[in-house]
Amino acid sequence: MSARAVLVDGEAIATTAEMLFEERGLHYGDGLFETIALVNGRPLFWEAHLRRLSRGASILGIPIPAAGDWEADLSRLQALSEPLSPCVLKLMLTRGPGWGYAPPAMPTPRRYAVILPWPDRPDANWRPGIRTAICPTPLATGAPYLTVKSLNRLNQIQARRALPPEYPEGILLDGKGCLREGIMSNLFWVEGEQLYTPRLDDGGIAGIQRAAIMDQGRSWGLEVRERQVGPEALETADELFFCNSLIGIWPVRHFAARSWPGSTGPVAAALLEWGEGIGLGPCP
Amino acid sequence: MSARAVLVDGEAIATTAEMLFEERGLHYGDGLFETIALVNGRPLFWEAHLRRLSRGASILGIPIPAAGDWEADLSRLQALSEPLSPCVLKLMLTRGPGWGYAPPAMPTPRRYAVILPWPDRPDANWRPGIRTAICPTPLATGAPYLTVKSLNRLNQIQARRALPPEYPEGILLDGKGCLREGIMSNLFWVEGEQLYTPRLDDGGIAGIQRAAIMDQGRSWGLEVRERQVGPEALETADELFFCNSLIGIWPVRHFAARSWPGSTGPVAAALLEWGEGIGLGPCP
Repeated sequence: MSARAVLVDGEAIATTAEMLFEERGLHYGDGLFETIALVNGRPLFWEAHLRRLSRGASILGIPIPAAGDWEADLSRLQALSEPLSPCVLKLMLTRGPGWGYAPPAMPTPRRYAVILPWPDRPDANWRPGIRTAICPTPLATGAPYLTVKSLNRLNQIQARRALPPEYPEGILLDGKGCLREGIMSNLFWVEGEQLYTPRLDDGGIAGIQRAAIMDQGRSWGLEVRERQVGPEALETADELFFCNSLIGIWPVRHFAARSWPGSTGPVAAALLEWGEGIGLGPCP
Repeated sequence: MSARAVLVDGEAIATTAEMLFEERGLHYGDGLFETIALVNGRPLFWEAHLRRLSRGASILGIPIPAAGDWEADLSRLQALSEPLSPCVLKLMLTRGPGWGYAPPAMPTPRRYAVILPWPDRPDANWRPGIRTAICPTPLATGAPYLTVKSLNRLNQIQARRALPPEYPEGILLDGKGCLREGIMSNLFWVEGEQLYTPRLDDGGIAGIQRAAIMDQGRSWGLEVRERQVGPEALETADELFFCNSLIGIWPVRHFAARSWPGSTGPVAAALLEWGEGIGLGPCP
């Protein structure tokens, strides 16, 4: 899987591709990103992604590009790259050059925009769903920067490395043993008419898809609540699923001693259908 | 401050310098580094730095280059760059290309070696010493990868951003309020014949200079101990200082309600002299 087109500050670079070495994004992970589904040339939840990027940049103190710059990048990328649908648009914003932990007083941030191929994943992840497990590695929490989709992703990499490949996704607990999120996704569970997802106040990334699903759930008359609870809360769940901006949702078929062997539960089934309607689901 | 010479896998690249964009070091901070003082052409504590780099790479599961590769890089850099003494040698090892949190089954790590100018810092940081304070941002702890000098350094950047510039260094506590380290250094304090430094079992970077100072302290007959204690332990300290591989030590002159206004304490004074003997101290 390699990048199909890359812009740095709006300029195309070779897709083999070269960038400046003096880049705090490389040396310190001093930046953040968004991963956006591009379906029929349209970036899904575009405004929500740009809002989250701006909110994260402001937590990190990185000056925020104009929304128009990202829009111009998208148009230019689409002109450069042969149209593929779906594909992935990755936006990345870094603090640019400068050595040492203290950021420059006047940083010159860099804007990256990249088109990537759609990840290839088994259809079975959507129907009937996946196996999952608790990751042995806790999620670091306790500071605002830990809610940012930053370029510091070793926590997720170490969690993924520790999880056997038969689990397409794993559940991250925080240091107190509370549910937080998936390695690359958010977590939901259903109990009766309640739709639950973990609270992410001081760590964990509140996904754009997570917010969209909370809205969908409310529109269907479900009571939607964020909770700070341990994995024992999942013992009585009727349904369990993960979501992110590229997969839509993956229902869980097996978790710990529990399995949901029959057909997909009603909330997950409705969300699968809703996701497929906007272009998220098994690769077409 | 800009790089004077850069090698990627042993090949020189322009110092303005270009690198591959498909680099997990950039996208995820998936790598680690060492910062080494190069004094009269000699890298100080070379074997200790390479040992720590290997230990860190093994925690992250990144294949380890042969020590001979780094030695060849150092020779080539010294041939490329006009000799400056002292200067900084930065070694960096990343997991190389590959998208997604799951690392490739067969990663192709990249080896970077860079010569940087010696940082310019006020002589007063060594004598009479610095002001310091507790950082409001806690240090993330609780997992082996948090002991690695990795490319995930947002914790340090956010801590530095939150600390006023009149403090050349700040003290990081963990989430339980225990002393851990400086933002870019390790912390020591002296009480009578005891030399103390925080325990770093599950978070914080055990510096090469820290180990060298513990050895020095023992050789001078001090009792050297690692402790897990809160900042109240510093209230009765006779001396307090920070250390790293580039600064040697910076004695603390003011911390919270305490100040050490007189001449530098005997342990810090001996360490300043020892550091200057090997080339660490105010810029010559």
